[in-house]
Amino acid sequence: MKVYEFKGFPNPARVRIALAEKGLFDRVEFVHVDVPGGEHKRPDFLAKNPSGVVPVMELDDGTLISECSAITEYLDHAAGDPVLTGRDAKERAVIHMAQRKIEAGLLDAVAAYFHHATDGLGPNIETYQNKDWGLRQKEVALATMRRMDGMLADRDYLALDRFTVADITAMAGFAFADFVKLAIPDDCARLQAWRARVSARPSAAMAA
Amino acid sequence: MKVYEFKGFPNPARVRIALAEKGLFDRVEFVHVDVPGGEHKRPDFLAKNPSGVVPVMELDDGTLISECSAITEYLDHAAGDPVLTGRDAKERAVIHMAQRKIEAGLLDAVAAYFHHATDGLGPNIETYQNKDWGLRQKEVALATMRRMDGMLADRDYLALDRFTVADITAMAGFAFADFVKLAIPDDCARLQAWRARVSARPSAAMAA
Ligand SMILES: N[C@@H](CCC(=O)N[C@@H](CS)C(=O)NCC(=O)O)C(=O)O
Ligand SMILES: N[C@@H](CCC(=O)N[C@@H](CS)C(=O)NCC(=O)O)C(=O)O
Repeated sequence: MKVYEFKGFPNPARVRIALAEKGLFDRVEFVHVDVPGGEHKRPDFLAKNPSGVVPVMELDDGTLISECSAITEYLDHAAGDPVLTGRDAKERAVIHMAQRKIEAGLLDAVAAYFHHATDGLGPNIETYQNKDWGLRQKEVALATMRRMDGMLADRDYLALDRFTVADITAMAGFAFADFVKLAIPDDCARLQAWRARVSARPSAAMAA
Repeated sequence: MKVYEFKGFPNPARVRIALAEKGLFDRVEFVHVDVPGGEHKRPDFLAKNPSGVVPVMELDDGTLISECSAITEYLDHAAGDPVLTGRDAKERAVIHMAQRKIEAGLLDAVAAYFHHATDGLGPNIETYQNKDWGLRQKEVALATMRRMDGMLADRDYLALDRFTVADITAMAGFAFADFVKLAIPDDCARLQAWRARVSARPSAAMAA
């Protein structure tokens, strides 16, 4: 398998964490895409992912998978029990719901703030900016952090009482939030504790 | 199982189609939520779904599942083979990717156009509007339709050569697009043919 990515960026980090959690890290060849140089918006890369974003996974038969949640779906079913995405109907639904809400409300919201209300990736790449939208998404991200603190009231991880893809998406969201200097609110003690907990996992070190 | 919804709205339609495809329609009690009246933004409903949108599914043990893709995940694994979301790692990844791209690029984009660049659900509910963002999302929706036409170059359905949740999300996206008078471009003949094909399914009639 190949993974086209930019090391250190938040979405590629999601795939690196999933690979590490599933024990598949050494099975992948990482291919560097020059995102700051705009390589991901040129025809060769758009043929791999029309959305023009990294990461993309290429299976040995040439199948191209983009969207981190879809890549994780593959990895989770390709090796061992699907512990990251859920073993039965109810686990799967609860995890999928949490992952989706954290992706939209935290990770994608922080990304929208970055791309629209800051210089983002610079004028060559940020060809459409809507500052008011970006600032609004910053508020969405903060509100989502408060909700996530609530999710942790009766469990140690965000979807279930064990580590899942919802936690991976959140880890990437907070790495991105650090980068744009958006801190977890002081009154979110459970979320702070969760962050220390997941940061101590070996997979966290392999994504950085 | 209960499903809190507003009949005829595009997202609730996704769950109705999934229920019909899985033969589970009669196992569900539908509960009407007065969305035009703002019931979905009041504390009772927000306790069921903090995102304040319909549909929400309540399992018999009280577990609450929101996000249509999560609800479909449940239904697909609760009865029979998971044909809508995929039987193996590769199918699952390909379907998840297509569903996600169609949700973001078509359904959610059309919804953003509706909520931001038209009167949407009216001034009591649309407390933040960003017209420029809404108009931009309309362009995203049209670009997505063209990409979807391309996806159909070598198959009859959007993710695989059979009907999946990616097609369900697209059906809801086009129902919403009809409502806001956004037509499939004339040069997208494969997409027009796909739409006739899925509209003829019994599940389509049960969602309307
Ligand atoms: N929803 C996508 C998001 C991917 C994404 O936004 N990747 C960023 C890097 S973290 C990117 O490629 N940005 C380039 C750009 O926006 O131009 C996923 O799950 O993979
Ligand atoms: N991503 C959500 C979207 C749900 C959604 O936006 N539902 C609409 C009805 S089609 C709604 O409740 N809108 C009310 C509002 O926006 O105030 C899902 O998959 O369920």
